[in-house]
Amino acid sequence: MRQVFAMLGILGVVVLIMAPGGAQAQITKNMAAKSPWGPDDEIGTLNMMTDASKLDILKQIVSGKVYDLSVDLFAGMPSCCGAFGDPPYHLWMTHTPRGTIAANPFNVPREVNERVAYSGDAISMYTHTGTHIDTLNHFGLYGKIWNQFSADDHLGDQGWSKAGADKYPPIIARGVLIDVAKAKGMTHLPHSYGITVADLQTALRQQGTKLQPGDVVLFRTGLMTLWPDPTKYQLGNQAGLSLEAAQWLVEENQVMLLGGDNFGVERFPSTDPGNYVPVHTYLFAERGVSIIEVMWLEDLAKDQVYEFVFIAPPLKLRGATGSPIRPLAIPTQR
Amino acid sequence: MRQVFAMLGILGVVVLIMAPGGAQAQITKNMAAKSPWGPDDEIGTLNMMTDASKLDILKQIVSGKVYDLSVDLFAGMPSCCGAFGDPPYHLWMTHTPRGTIAANPFNVPREVNERVAYSGDAISMYTHTGTHIDTLNHFGLYGKIWNQFSADDHLGDQGWSKAGADKYPPIIARGVLIDVAKAKGMTHLPHSYGITVADLQTALRQQGTKLQPGDVVLFRTGLMTLWPDPTKYQLGNQAGLSLEAAQWLVEENQVMLLGGDNFGVERFPSTDPGNYVPVHTYLFAERGVSIIEVMWLEDLAKDQVYEFVFIAPPLKLRGATGSPIRPLAIPTQR
Amino acid sequence: MRQVFAMLGILGVVVLIMAPGGAQAQITKNMAAKSPWGPDDEIGTLNMMTDASKLDILKQIVSGKVYDLSVDLFAGMPSCCGAFGDPPYHLWMTHTPRGTIAANPFNVPREVNERVAYSGDAISMYTHTGTHIDTLNHFGLYGKIWNQFSADDHLGDQGWSKAGADKYPPIIARGVLIDVAKAKGMTHLPHSYGITVADLQTALRQQGTKLQPGDVVLFRTGLMTLWPDPTKYQLGNQAGLSLEAAQWLVEENQVMLLGGDNFGVERFPSTDPGNYVPVHTYLFAERGVSIIEVMWLEDLAKDQVYEFVFIAPPLKLRGATGSPIRPLAIPTQR
Amino acid sequence: MRQVFAMLGILGVVVLIMAPGGAQAQITKNMAAKSPWGPDDEIGTLNMMTDASKLDILKQIVSGKVYDLSVDLFAGMPSCCGAFGDPPYHLWMTHTPRGTIAANPFNVPREVNERVAYSGDAISMYTHTGTHIDTLNHFGLYGKIWNQFSADDHLGDQGWSKAGADKYPPIIARGVLIDVAKAKGMTHLPHSYGITVADLQTALRQQGTKLQPGDVVLFRTGLMTLWPDPTKYQLGNQAGLSLEAAQWLVEENQVMLLGGDNFGVERFPSTDPGNYVPVHTYLFAERGVSIIEVMWLEDLAKDQVYEFVFIAPPLKLRGATGSPIRPLAIPTQR
Repeated sequence: MRQVFAMLGILGVVVLIMAPGGAQAQITKNMAAKSPWGPDDEIGTLNMMTDASKLDILKQIVSGKVYDLSVDLFAGMPSCCGAFGDPPYHLWMTHTPRGTIAANPFNVPREVNERVAYSGDAISMYTHTGTHIDTLNHFGLYGKIWNQFSADDHLGDQGWSKAGADKYPPIIARGVLIDVAKAKGMTHLPHSYGITVADLQTALRQQGTKLQPGDVVLFRTGLMTLWPDPTKYQLGNQAGLSLEAAQWLVEENQVMLLGGDNFGVERFPSTDPGNYVPVHTYLFAERGVSIIEVMWLEDLAKDQVYEFVFIAPPLKLRGATGSPIRPLAIPTQR
Repeated sequence: MRQVFAMLGILGVVVLIMAPGGAQAQITKNMAAKSPWGPDDEIGTLNMMTDASKLDILKQIVSGKVYDLSVDLFAGMPSCCGAFGDPPYHLWMTHTPRGTIAANPFNVPREVNERVAYSGDAISMYTHTGTHIDTLNHFGLYGKIWNQFSADDHLGDQGWSKAGADKYPPIIARGVLIDVAKAKGMTHLPHSYGITVADLQTALRQQGTKLQPGDVVLFRTGLMTLWPDPTKYQLGNQAGLSLEAAQWLVEENQVMLLGGDNFGVERFPSTDPGNYVPVHTYLFAERGVSIIEVMWLEDLAKDQVYEFVFIAPPLKLRGATGSPIRPLAIPTQR
Repeated sequence: MRQVFAMLGILGVVVLIMAPGGAQAQITKNMAAKSPWGPDDEIGTLNMMTDASKLDILKQIVSGKVYDLSVDLFAGMPSCCGAFGDPPYHLWMTHTPRGTIAANPFNVPREVNERVAYSGDAISMYTHTGTHIDTLNHFGLYGKIWNQFSADDHLGDQGWSKAGADKYPPIIARGVLIDVAKAKGMTHLPHSYGITVADLQTALRQQGTKLQPGDVVLFRTGLMTLWPDPTKYQLGNQAGLSLEAAQWLVEENQVMLLGGDNFGVERFPSTDPGNYVPVHTYLFAERGVSIIEVMWLEDLAKDQVYEFVFIAPPLKLRGATGSPIRPLAIPTQR
Repeated sequence: MRQVFAMLGILGVVVLIMAPGGAQAQITKNMAAKSPWGPDDEIGTLNMMTDASKLDILKQIVSGKVYDLSVDLFAGMPSCCGAFGDPPYHLWMTHTPRGTIAANPFNVPREVNERVAYSGDAISMYTHTGTHIDTLNHFGLYGKIWNQFSADDHLGDQGWSKAGADKYPPIIARGVLIDVAKAKGMTHLPHSYGITVADLQTALRQQGTKLQPGDVVLFRTGLMTLWPDPTKYQLGNQAGLSLEAAQWLVEENQVMLLGGDNFGVERFPSTDPGNYVPVHTYLFAERGVSIIEVMWLEDLAKDQVYEFVFIAPPLKLRGATGSPIRPLAIPTQR
């Protein structure tokens, strides 16, 4: 098997070089990388967090106004993947006060069911629905994810034994908002617009914000102004990071985690005919950088809060490729 | 309908008075209460949080060691409710690198599928699985929940329009651990033991901890030492709070939120023949106090961290009666 | 409660009389009926089947060509109810040969997993998806279904204790196809067309077919020529039976079971502003007649097979309001 | 990849030869076979059915008493595979009369919701739950199923493109019941008993039944007398066919389809340490014989009906490895 994939790897590079976005061949390796944090690493750049880094940023809190960076989860919400067979968000009642009276599942006297008004519910969902984190096993290259864990060895029928959401620590770090839409004077970026390095630099300069290694960087496209109308918040057609911008953030600025208010962080559709998610595979498989998608950044933007403590605990869904998450931002001194 | 339930309410009280735990009739009203926070209130005592209260506790952080108070979610984990038809936690793959190659759902050339190693997954679960918050619509009395919202008016087939997890703010408050098991010198409390007021008082005294109004109070039974073996962590047979202890915490100490490392906060089975969850209905319907269950308190206990910032953002599952949650504790000065 | 619904019943009739389709008020009672087959009856007109009736029709079989009257179930198929939160058809793998090798769920030597190539899968679906039978508890009137079973008494959180698919016998009876589209010289009936009594009579006369009491009557709109394109096979906008035609089949001709190749047997949208499914409530609650929807009648029509043994065993989904079904037709002598 | 599996194939045989059931190595090939019905065949021995064979048996019907050979599907029913993470049978309400009134999903006047009492439900289940057919893709050998279709080429994330339940014709054939439990004078066969060739021969002789090529052969262990108590109808510990008995039925008697009242047709646990389902892999991968499991044969047995028309239409679940099914038996002349 290794031989087959090795061969495909070579072919892949060939294809890429011939593609219009040929320049990419020079700057992405199209191979899952080994982690600098060792052969057991499953979380990539989240290793940049330390107790000291967390305490340092927590000590800078200057406000008790807590910003909620997530959206509601509800039936009918925009979702990428119904067209590809992924189940939509669904909630159903498994216990109701009247149903309990009628069916008496606990075998108690009727007056007990009349008194105890029990409601319970269940959910099903694609893990990449609403505001969510993508873990490093979500996309790999040539059958391998970050740190060269292979699907053949580590992907069972109930998830990955490597790099799942259960391995992710709570994220507490300095957060920075880059309001690209505002810097460009737009309500939201145009369809399929690829955010450039210059866009990010301009916005940061206008905001007076400086990036630091280990930051959680959130960029705002303004697309949430179209939420939650699925016909407007068009998942397949969104503005997002160009590969170059992602590379600048990661390689020049050592961001730890990237997030956006769009569906897929990167622009869609991809401009690389050989890869429908080139930024995903670059970030996850080559650089070990996780991302958070479908973030609610409107309140931060409105209040012009560009620096904050970012707090986000992924649910420990064992083996999952992502997790719904409710990130928080608490303003710090600048 | 109101007439019917009013009548049942009267009958309910009669039944209760005749029950062995008759003394309860004097101290619980067995009626869903109106909220002191007004007719629109859906979150009860969580209204005690303010920006000022949050900043105050956040400023007391003295450590960057973040305690994770949640357990993993995985197939086969202990779950209350399979016997009552609730779906167990289930994760399945909707996209795999090899499945994508075989079926080509995106209709791309084979080499693209070979390059882009896509993994995606979906989950289904009863919302009260693993570490989770119970919202105030989870249990009511006589067809009504906290603030007298009735199921007939507000419970649709896709959840409650009132008091759902989507209405819950991120929780940031002073947290206190009461290590009852340690105070009693036990690895874990015995089956079905009802924690008394004296137990709580003794443990607090031994710890040197004082409760303050608005606290998040977590009590430790030690039952997590039996986790995750379903035959040992016996959900229907657990130690937990007695009603009197819950009342003391709420009425004498103005706790804002209660949490425990057992499955249902209260002891099971109930000692009240007329109510199989008397502490739940008291807390939710009569007092507006939410709870968090199945918490991982072992690390806090081991380090004897009894006071901390408690941070917990429920997922905004619209209309749900609860949400999986990953609470964090960050030590404060004492 | 009874009082409330009785009152609503009266109001309901008033509303109906004032509605444009006022004539209906004279011919439908808008009340769930008592069954002539006794207080325990849950299957309505399916009681017309006897061992003798079944043997009689089975003895008339003249061909071994078996017609399959069902469609495939697959992700992305036309479905009524995603817009209303019903889960779409979804199939996922719970066991795969490679996943079993990677995760070893049975704890066997690797070579065993390599030898035994295990594939297993699970499904979820709204029960009214694809070719399916509607049972009599699917629609009622004023809180009661056929034979006056009330939801308050018989609808638990895991289904009805009355009239569920588990109570349904295998259906074996004389079947008749009425090819309305052919009789009208159309590929398919126009959107929202209401099939009239005259339409049925004309088609029967052209075919030379006579109805008999106890028949399974299948009518063809031709809409399956648009299947399975959801944008063409428009569920909310389909031709189907008018209430008058349904009444003629039931009251003049004593049909036992009705089926069609459209989504809802009746035309949509309803022309009765007070009832969005007037034919459903008439058939189920007032007359005890079940229906089968989304049938594949193209092969029968092409071969002009108008009389046959109809064989259809519903799955015994306990308490369900319907069941996917694969009905068969085997030609009889005419 | 082929090389790897070829090598594994050799190892597999070695393991088998060394196993206690070593004799098997002489009579099973442990390789997925090519179909005698050609390279496109996906249904194996079901190809034995013809219009003529179906008419022939249908003409022999002598009774209208139709035997239902299936069990109810309900929450809590015995199921193999919860321990392996397969979802249990679950039914939930997506529409209820009162929920519709409270939430008004169709946006109609309240009196319409009060009139139209809508109930709808959804299900989820492992496809191998209750009475069900196993299709030939359910188990293969060394990554390939019947007719040498490989998982790598044909197994996508939403099922197999080969040999799925959607490819299965309605089954109509001569059926024979072999009441092994009765012939042995037992209420049910002992745990893990392996039915021998002699057992089948004895029972057939006592019944006066002769097998014919193309038969559907159902054998009765009597285990349904323990149904549906999961602690008694022990799935992992059941009596069933020995491999030799399966081979005798297939190779000596040309059965078309096998069915039983036990969970897995074959005995469990397997006596072959190198294969936990040796009869499954033999039947499916080597011989193209499908099976039906968890059948209700008590009524046939009680009435001593040993020969009948067997009618069973699998649901056309696209790509599935099985389907719930409700088989029927109608007595024929002997």
